[in-house]
Amino acid sequence: MPPVDPAALSPPPPSIGPRVRTVPPGEDRERLVCPDCSYIAYENPKIVVGAVVTDNLGRFLLCRRAIPPRRGFWTLPAGYMELNETTEQGAAREAMEEAGAHIAIDALLAIYNIPRISQVQMIYRATLAGPTLAAGTESLEVALFDWKDIPWDELAFPSVVWALHEWRTRAGQTGFAPGTNPPPPVEGL
Amino acid sequence: MPPVDPAALSPPPPSIGPRVRTVPPGEDRERLVCPDCSYIAYENPKIVVGAVVTDNLGRFLLCRRAIPPRRGFWTLPAGYMELNETTEQGAAREAMEEAGAHIAIDALLAIYNIPRISQVQMIYRATLAGPTLAAGTESLEVALFDWKDIPWDELAFPSVVWALHEWRTRAGQTGFAPGTNPPPPVEGL
Ligand SMILES: [Zn+2]
Ligand SMILES: [Zn+2]
Repeated sequence: MPPVDPAALSPPPPSIGPRVRTVPPGEDRERLVCPDCSYIAYENPKIVVGAVVTDNLGRFLLCRRAIPPRRGFWTLPAGYMELNETTEQGAAREAMEEAGAHIAIDALLAIYNIPRISQVQMIYRATLAGPTLAAGTESLEVALFDWKDIPWDELAFPSVVWALHEWRTRAGQTGFAPGTNPPPPVEGL
Repeated sequence: MPPVDPAALSPPPPSIGPRVRTVPPGEDRERLVCPDCSYIAYENPKIVVGAVVTDNLGRFLLCRRAIPPRRGFWTLPAGYMELNETTEQGAAREAMEEAGAHIAIDALLAIYNIPRISQVQMIYRATLAGPTLAAGTESLEVALFDWKDIPWDELAFPSVVWALHEWRTRAGQTGFAPGTNPPPPVEGL
């Protein structure tokens, strides 16, 4: 899953390339501009694609992160969508890259908006289509967990928890609207 | 709606900023690199957000494009998602910018993948929430059409046609899975 750790969101300012925030001539909002050559880097929200994957025993596929943010915590196979692929192809690619898993996608489970970091997460429901698993370079290990054995206290990101619960809500259903962010917790009651 | 016109897809090569395709050290695929300062521009798929908007008489809101590609053709209010907004906020913003329309979003109607141009389109179903309309700077005019009066031969992009038909398929329904690209036409039969 994606960088949601605040500690990872403030990299040191780059010393090359687009790095000055200013409103270019003819535009209506600040863009990132290179002071050396005037190149404008248009920043866009990024799409994260991933899947809640189960095997034929109903166990859930999770990957333990080998990279920051949240190294050592468990996550769904997911990552940034690449150019020239569909969202489904991206989710299947990430399952292969991070967990060595062939998956069969069945439905769009949820869409989570994280506007603070300009991210849209599209999480599919899928089943394992082959017996093999293998931790990729971004995973310390991969494993299959029964629901009751999911390491809830060691999940990397809130949206991993949301997606697993969405899976339970939708078990056995087809043709449903994808889930969205849960309402924020109500404080002070 | 987005650049889908092939004529608009081959801009002249830029003379500043990231413009050389090469595999940077430690990476596994080509990236766009600036030969002057080594800055790497990570290219990501872009999200287009938009809506099929109807008024209380069941008419469909369309905008006639004032800009290329497909200038003069009719489209849905839609455009690139900006930073720090949700997909729903982006769709509502585009309806305001392009058509001066306040809208109330009701459901996610469809998700279209256009991998050739690395685009994911998220099209919502919405109703007009106020009586006023006003063509924005990207629209020559905006108008409301009964279904039978939609200028089918003057729609800007295939996905406009797909989304309008998806709207008809889903009329009166809630809690449905968003539509996806129709299967490509079968040739040679
Ligand atoms: Zn520069
Ligand atoms: Zn440069």
